[in-house]
Amino acid sequence: MADKNKVSLVIFSGDLDKLLASFIIATGAAASGMKVSMFFTFWGLKLIQKEGAKSSKMYWMKRLFGWMLRPGPDKRTLSQMNFLGLGPVMLKKLMKRSKVPSLRELMISARTLGVEFTACTTSMEIMGITRETLIPEVDRIAGVTSFLADAKQSNFTLFI
Amino acid sequence: MADKNKVSLVIFSGDLDKLLASFIIATGAAASGMKVSMFFTFWGLKLIQKEGAKSSKMYWMKRLFGWMLRPGPDKRTLSQMNFLGLGPVMLKKLMKRSKVPSLRELMISARTLGVEFTACTTSMEIMGITRETLIPEVDRIAGVTSFLADAKQSNFTLFI
Amino acid sequence: MADKNKVSLVIFSGDLDKLLASFIIATGAAASGMKVSMFFTFWGLKLIQKEGAKSSKMYWMKRLFGWMLRPGPDKRTLSQMNFLGLGPVMLKKLMKRSKVPSLRELMISARTLGVEFTACTTSMEIMGITRETLIPEVDRIAGVTSFLADAKQSNFTLFI
Repeated sequence: MADKNKVSLVIFSGDLDKLLASFIIATGAAASGMKVSMFFTFWGLKLIQKEGAKSSKMYWMKRLFGWMLRPGPDKRTLSQMNFLGLGPVMLKKLMKRSKVPSLRELMISARTLGVEFTACTTSMEIMGITRETLIPEVDRIAGVTSFLADAKQSNFTLFI
Repeated sequence: MADKNKVSLVIFSGDLDKLLASFIIATGAAASGMKVSMFFTFWGLKLIQKEGAKSSKMYWMKRLFGWMLRPGPDKRTLSQMNFLGLGPVMLKKLMKRSKVPSLRELMISARTLGVEFTACTTSMEIMGITRETLIPEVDRIAGVTSFLADAKQSNFTLFI
Repeated sequence: MADKNKVSLVIFSGDLDKLLASFIIATGAAASGMKVSMFFTFWGLKLIQKEGAKSSKMYWMKRLFGWMLRPGPDKRTLSQMNFLGLGPVMLKKLMKRSKVPSLRELMISARTLGVEFTACTTSMEIMGITRETLIPEVDRIAGVTSFLADAKQSNFTLFI
């Protein structure tokens, strides 16, 4: 155990602000030489879906859920102060002026640094998300058992 | 420390989606042989209250808080996309079609697998919740010190 | 590793209920002899800003964000049941009747017990928060690398 050097993150939220925090932690940890595992579940799955992806051959409910939460890093809203989209626009401008990388750029950095992306099987089934609609950067589709194996080997695990 | 095999979960949220995630992790960990401790606090207490339970002999404020958050697994709302209750109804239907167990079923599984339920003393006092209004499956009522003792012995601890 | 005795908390949320939970854990852990580190980021920064502090010499966007989230422990709202401020008023009254310390009192206890307050550099830059507008109790301003160093040495780390 003394040589643990790993972080596990459960990405439950689809909120822009929480996703930014997640990726700042993930890229920071990976840059400092830690192994990082991100487990995308529930609303978090929307980030790793292809932009414009639609839930096809689904019941109308899956369609409705799909419509409500549009996929991709640019469609994320804030957990607070969203104000019909004004909040995210402002936050993105503030980040740009402060030279903080965007969520899209952070995702690319994370991949370059070897951060592992796992999509949660159970949530995919519930929400009607298929493998083909996920971005190719997703390393694997796995359930809670895989997450637990990662978390047990991690220095710390966060639920975000 | 090498033989740690325990998970601690702080269940702060009363949202259906977060509770589902909590219980999927809890039952998954317990099924794989880990000891699991769930510490219900604040809004999370609503899940382990008897259905139809009322806060009696209380100030009107406690009554009002009690009315606002109805107890039990069937009354939980979503952290996002709630749409006056349409969201939870849809999610439950999607889960049924995907053969994912309901929150009520997951709670029963958790208990069968030996997951420990603790109710937070401080939150109970604040919200005017008495022992009698909790479901009998609650193992103990305890404060932050008990939680800390559990968390220190855990492989990982999540705040949900 | 056997002598780890530390807790790290990422305070991402600015919600009264989550901040109360954070400080109950922090003071409980510190009182039991653990080293506690609180890393304030995003909306959590609002708690450790001086009351009445304004984001000066800023773009109108920073001003607007500043206006939307007023600083200090007394201005925090609830993650649920906020009801235009009625929720926090009620919660504070219930806490007082139950003799639970207020958020302000918990912050003072935390400092007395040696809990360390760190403000996140990146979030400060994005939100236009300067050192001068933070309360003097803040020990340091640091980035994700410092947080990671703390988290790696902790028994458990929570994202709140």
